[in-house]
Amino acid sequence: MGDSEEIESISPYGPARSTVKGNPLSKEEIEKYNDFFKASLYLALGMIYLRDNPLLRQPLELKHVKARLLGHFGSAPGQIFTYMHFNRLIKKYDLDAIYISGPGHGAPAVLSQAYLEGTYSEVYPDKSEDEDGMQRFFKDFSFPGGIGSHATPETPGSIHEGGELGYSISHAFGAVFDHPSLIALTVVGDGEAETGPLATAWHSTKFLNPITDGAVLPVLHLNGYKINNPTILARISHKELESLFIGYGWQPYFVEGDDIESMHQALAATLERCVVEIKKYQKEARDSGKALRPRWPLVVLRTPKGWTAPRKVDNKFLEGFWRSHQVPITDVRENPKHLELLESWMRSYEPDRLFKDARISKELKEALCPTGSRRMSANPVANGGTIKKPLKMPNFRDYAIKVDKPGVTFDASMVNMSAYLRDVVALNMTSFRLFGPDETESNKLGKVYEAGKKVWMGEYFEEDKDGGNLAPAGRVMEMLSEHTCEGWLEGYILTGRHGLLNSYEPFIHVIDSMVNQHCKWIEKALEVEWRDKVASLNILLTAVVWRQDHNGFTHQDPGFLDVVANKSPEVVRIYLPPDGNCLLSVMDHCFRSSNYVNVIVSDKQEHLQYLSMEEAVVHCTKGIGIWPQFSSDAGEEPDLVMASCGDIPTHESLAAIDLLLRHFPELKIRCVNVVDLFKLISHIDHPHGLTDREWVGLFTADKPIIFNFHSYPWLVHRLTYKRPGSINLHVRGYKEKGNIDTPLELAIRNQTDRFSLAMDAIDRMPHLHNRGSAAREALHNEQIRARNEAYETGIDPPFLKNWTWQENVTKAKKA
Amino acid sequence: MGDSEEIESISPYGPARSTVKGNPLSKEEIEKYNDFFKASLYLALGMIYLRDNPLLRQPLELKHVKARLLGHFGSAPGQIFTYMHFNRLIKKYDLDAIYISGPGHGAPAVLSQAYLEGTYSEVYPDKSEDEDGMQRFFKDFSFPGGIGSHATPETPGSIHEGGELGYSISHAFGAVFDHPSLIALTVVGDGEAETGPLATAWHSTKFLNPITDGAVLPVLHLNGYKINNPTILARISHKELESLFIGYGWQPYFVEGDDIESMHQALAATLERCVVEIKKYQKEARDSGKALRPRWPLVVLRTPKGWTAPRKVDNKFLEGFWRSHQVPITDVRENPKHLELLESWMRSYEPDRLFKDARISKELKEALCPTGSRRMSANPVANGGTIKKPLKMPNFRDYAIKVDKPGVTFDASMVNMSAYLRDVVALNMTSFRLFGPDETESNKLGKVYEAGKKVWMGEYFEEDKDGGNLAPAGRVMEMLSEHTCEGWLEGYILTGRHGLLNSYEPFIHVIDSMVNQHCKWIEKALEVEWRDKVASLNILLTAVVWRQDHNGFTHQDPGFLDVVANKSPEVVRIYLPPDGNCLLSVMDHCFRSSNYVNVIVSDKQEHLQYLSMEEAVVHCTKGIGIWPQFSSDAGEEPDLVMASCGDIPTHESLAAIDLLLRHFPELKIRCVNVVDLFKLISHIDHPHGLTDREWVGLFTADKPIIFNFHSYPWLVHRLTYKRPGSINLHVRGYKEKGNIDTPLELAIRNQTDRFSLAMDAIDRMPHLHNRGSAAREALHNEQIRARNEAYETGIDPPFLKNWTWQENVTKAKKA
Repeated sequence: MGDSEEIESISPYGPARSTVKGNPLSKEEIEKYNDFFKASLYLALGMIYLRDNPLLRQPLELKHVKARLLGHFGSAPGQIFTYMHFNRLIKKYDLDAIYISGPGHGAPAVLSQAYLEGTYSEVYPDKSEDEDGMQRFFKDFSFPGGIGSHATPETPGSIHEGGELGYSISHAFGAVFDHPSLIALTVVGDGEAETGPLATAWHSTKFLNPITDGAVLPVLHLNGYKINNPTILARISHKELESLFIGYGWQPYFVEGDDIESMHQALAATLERCVVEIKKYQKEARDSGKALRPRWPLVVLRTPKGWTAPRKVDNKFLEGFWRSHQVPITDVRENPKHLELLESWMRSYEPDRLFKDARISKELKEALCPTGSRRMSANPVANGGTIKKPLKMPNFRDYAIKVDKPGVTFDASMVNMSAYLRDVVALNMTSFRLFGPDETESNKLGKVYEAGKKVWMGEYFEEDKDGGNLAPAGRVMEMLSEHTCEGWLEGYILTGRHGLLNSYEPFIHVIDSMVNQHCKWIEKALEVEWRDKVASLNILLTAVVWRQDHNGFTHQDPGFLDVVANKSPEVVRIYLPPDGNCLLSVMDHCFRSSNYVNVIVSDKQEHLQYLSMEEAVVHCTKGIGIWPQFSSDAGEEPDLVMASCGDIPTHESLAAIDLLLRHFPELKIRCVNVVDLFKLISHIDHPHGLTDREWVGLFTADKPIIFNFHSYPWLVHRLTYKRPGSINLHVRGYKEKGNIDTPLELAIRNQTDRFSLAMDAIDRMPHLHNRGSAAREALHNEQIRARNEAYETGIDPPFLKNWTWQENVTKAKKA
Repeated sequence: MGDSEEIESISPYGPARSTVKGNPLSKEEIEKYNDFFKASLYLALGMIYLRDNPLLRQPLELKHVKARLLGHFGSAPGQIFTYMHFNRLIKKYDLDAIYISGPGHGAPAVLSQAYLEGTYSEVYPDKSEDEDGMQRFFKDFSFPGGIGSHATPETPGSIHEGGELGYSISHAFGAVFDHPSLIALTVVGDGEAETGPLATAWHSTKFLNPITDGAVLPVLHLNGYKINNPTILARISHKELESLFIGYGWQPYFVEGDDIESMHQALAATLERCVVEIKKYQKEARDSGKALRPRWPLVVLRTPKGWTAPRKVDNKFLEGFWRSHQVPITDVRENPKHLELLESWMRSYEPDRLFKDARISKELKEALCPTGSRRMSANPVANGGTIKKPLKMPNFRDYAIKVDKPGVTFDASMVNMSAYLRDVVALNMTSFRLFGPDETESNKLGKVYEAGKKVWMGEYFEEDKDGGNLAPAGRVMEMLSEHTCEGWLEGYILTGRHGLLNSYEPFIHVIDSMVNQHCKWIEKALEVEWRDKVASLNILLTAVVWRQDHNGFTHQDPGFLDVVANKSPEVVRIYLPPDGNCLLSVMDHCFRSSNYVNVIVSDKQEHLQYLSMEEAVVHCTKGIGIWPQFSSDAGEEPDLVMASCGDIPTHESLAAIDLLLRHFPELKIRCVNVVDLFKLISHIDHPHGLTDREWVGLFTADKPIIFNFHSYPWLVHRLTYKRPGSINLHVRGYKEKGNIDTPLELAIRNQTDRFSLAMDAIDRMPHLHNRGSAAREALHNEQIRARNEAYETGIDPPFLKNWTWQENVTKAKKA
């Protein structure tokens, strides 16, 4: 099958076994790599253990050891080994590269390299390249108020924290799209490789164009163990392992063993082969203009977990077993023998010689490390804000829906917006992409294909010409994996570009945890002085709950907003534009913003349109407002506030106003609409929040409020429980009541239909007395008639759709 | 490399190409299969299109066609083909099998089979096997108030709805674990195959024991297209495809083409080969007692999407293209030619001949369909509640932590509970499993290995003997994929068994969407008369936010509770036991319950213990209660209520009471503790909810309440906004403020530490005047001292941990 058939053993021990043969390093070079490896490992242990005596200039004593031992050693040796050998190729070929650390808690590896390369001291001058600096560098690691054990935003060169596992490969691909010179060297832990998101992200090669994109060089690190278990990929046969990656579309090159000298040669030769192949494929494609999908190279690096640690401690396996996962010797504070063992282990890395002047020798550094921005820890790509250019924006007003008669014009907001989106794509052909899990066309955004087709590097069939919209070079990225789409988009944004993810609303929960983690990243990044702000991560949700009546209960879940609303107000924004012009205004605002996660909820079907473009801009800028044209209170204190948030809930709320005025033409009803959800919360808790005074100005302090909401109703309560008059606030929304329904029936189940809203309002106005009861009954009968018609025919009565608001409002105003 | 090298084409067209050769079917049998295939396809189209004239006894007119056309045809032909050919083997080998329909919206396939097998009419007598029954069967499909286009709970034989894609394989494995005779025939859509959860679930073979478990026979259906895109796996080379599955550990057998007759032979021969291989591997293992991991067979079935539909309509591709994904001809209501086309297409399936008596002939049915519970649509395994046996339970009281001095005893609740869990395992060795993503040991549950080790069918190394706890037959399932663990557990439960998932709290968000979908399944199942209740899905969350201080911000997210709380009150339960005996009581309760998703949150570190076992049982049974032993109100109206929910928040709240009483010995403080979160909500909204009267009895109607909560504080507000006196409720919880901290510092950031709580309480009691200010300042200084000590040493001052509550409470009581 391939070169690796000769390799039988799946042990991490022994002299190097590798697919690529060759001894590219001289004896002298090997010595240098040995020294650098030792220096790096010393730093990794120092971070975990020492709070003082960083160079072991004195005998190691308890007082030098941290009171609480934290950090992970297990994957550090393999990662360091990879990093430093790739540096050789950066220097030799002048490569533009970043390093992505997939294994969990891999910070000791990357921090040690950033420190040795000098980047760390440059961005954090107190962590200087001297004894004091090293002491602070050690002490701050996993120490209160210090830095994390992951490749957090504080880590120079990092775009991937790896706190939650699974996204290294999709992040790496996101980084290299439209960065044709970039190589993302990506170490994937064999634990991480078991996650679903990682397991499918290998297929990203079917979306990578060798002409316009850079390359990802994955190093699958068969470290052998997770926290407390062997890893699957380290315990299957060579044949299976090789087959798996050939199946995924990669050419795996194996490097296995623990004999350091031969491993130096093997990894050096292998990485070089990979770089040469990458450059060859890119050159072929770029010279010929033909974008093919080669079998991109991938390294399988098998080394013992905790490589170079003592093999056994107290007759229990440490190196090459899961015991070396975290702090390798845990009881040095309690066990003097183990403290001694630690000291002798650390001294085996020769700190005296290697850090003679409290830093590695200039000669060693110059020989092995790239300089300036060629250092992977200093590549500006990994500080995307610094290289980000603003999007070139069409004027969104040019795409306005003409609303001659507010509440009469029918149009599809999403289809209309897609023309604007198409032109955003067209104006930013190398810095904006649209992502989606096979739903872009279904979500009515197909017009974007006029500017950029769907990237496809798989085989082509005859049928594709019949509206397939596929091309090797495109701007739309579609794979049926929300995880991969989100990971690509995050990687793309974090390296200085812009994008939008579109998804069905119910299945966006698939990436709850990824969005959580991205929120955390951008929030922390705000605290890191040297990081510039990146573009916002924009998520457009459509195929919303209220039009998932026919797909049923599984497709009804608007709860992503709850997940997002739990994140820091510094970074999250939620918009529910009520119509097409508001959608345009909101999209424009989101695309121009930085460092947020913007969630936009908008249905994809045809709906009534309410606001002219100028009105929409005013409304969206305020984020919340009274709609006088739909109100009958004429600026006076109203009897009732009918509020809404979300396009479909707004439609029903306006219809309810109409129904109420039909029965009670004298009623003073105020119509309030919310676009920006965080207007509801106090300005103390969110920068967008209203003051209580502003709140009362809109909602009154004592009048009943019937609030029709897009999502779960209690989200509004959680945002408003402190508000004056919150006791009068009656929120309707999705209450997890669904089945195979029509839109009306689904709304009735959840009491968000016009009839229920109007009845609800009547119930809150006891002063209507008998007239109220009579109207209530009439409304109820009307509701039942409409519902029965739907059950008979399978579709809602047309009057529900064609209802127009103005008649009774106008009458009421005249009266 | 394998048999398939000879297959070059990746087109779905042409005579059958297959790995397995042979013509097992006679000409007569082929005719029968042709007839059955046509009858099934006719039903599939009937469901999508017809509301009347089900047998086309009259010419098709518009009035017979549904007003709204819904449903998906694309995957039905391939699924039907697979189902009916597997029936041959069920009959021949008397197999015990279920069918799992992976492709999205695959209901027309499975419903047609359930109807033809007679099961559908048995469970839904109005859908009888006659013209009227068929009319109702057609009309109800995707019709308001009817049945869904997925394999919903209403579908006999289904344990897998497939509304959200990605879980067919993990569900299938869950079903066959500990069901040694069962085969789960599992069709995987090539769209679904792109999802992360599915991509890693193929590795489940490393956890399947051929002696004690049944088998999964996957049929990867290369249908070629998703909604609007080609699929990745249908557009890679044969070599890659075959390698991929060999890499995953399967032996792929290819069956490809669209020529029906040769496809009958090829699929019949291939499925038979697979069944024979499965039986052979099982026999070898069971005879020898040696559980090896064979390369289990897998079928790759490549047929055109919408197979047998017109190849083109109006010169646009339909069959073999994404246009056949959903309703294949969409405009039959508007375009009379297309209505004609539909009619002639439907008649090509020969309804007149095949449904002569309005049902398929007895002869055909008997020849091809299994009977009774051998029908995949009637296998009781897929109605797990009917075969479920109650767990054999140890007496949880036997594992009580002895609490001599409440609030003084220090113990690890989780370690203690693990002995109980071990014995639950031991008593139910074929019907209970523990699942976890490599965290069981870290979560302090390692004692369970004494009863059942971790299932591992990968290679073994020497090191494994050194505490590896691996075995081919075990009871603990660990793979670093929350998705796979959850999918296994769901499959296991839905087929009549019991289990528990343990996970780090922050990363449970990875499976938000899966848990959502399971909640929806069990809620809908309650409405299906013939379904019996299954065991609850139990999720134990630990490594909680308040002890993720050192791992940092990425590891801090208690928001899973918000996601769960959005689901129907019929099915969700959330418990936060404050100590070890409460944890035991809660676990016991959850294991005995049915049809819930129970979420239990408990930290894994050592903590103070408060309640004796009998007190704990009383407290947990009530779910919420006053703790008089920690209160100084002596049953009178208090000045202040200090409430808490969650073990660590309880600890801090009690310490705050102590601090307050130190300063104000006369203060009447009431201590309220919440175990069952839904006690907080109104009894109108949740069956566990308190009445307002009960609420006031605990919390008062007008006194300040300082509520220390485990999760995001607004979750409590959303549950309680309607409560009397809710304006006095001040909730503290995680506010998304984190870093690398100590526990104290993390709590201070979020104002949940004892000092902040006590200061908070003082702020709500203006009547304390100057004494209040002085106490506040003292507390603040104490807080700063503690915090500075932590920053200096890296660990919190010991007094925080060893604090004991009773001194000041006792004093206060005496006074």
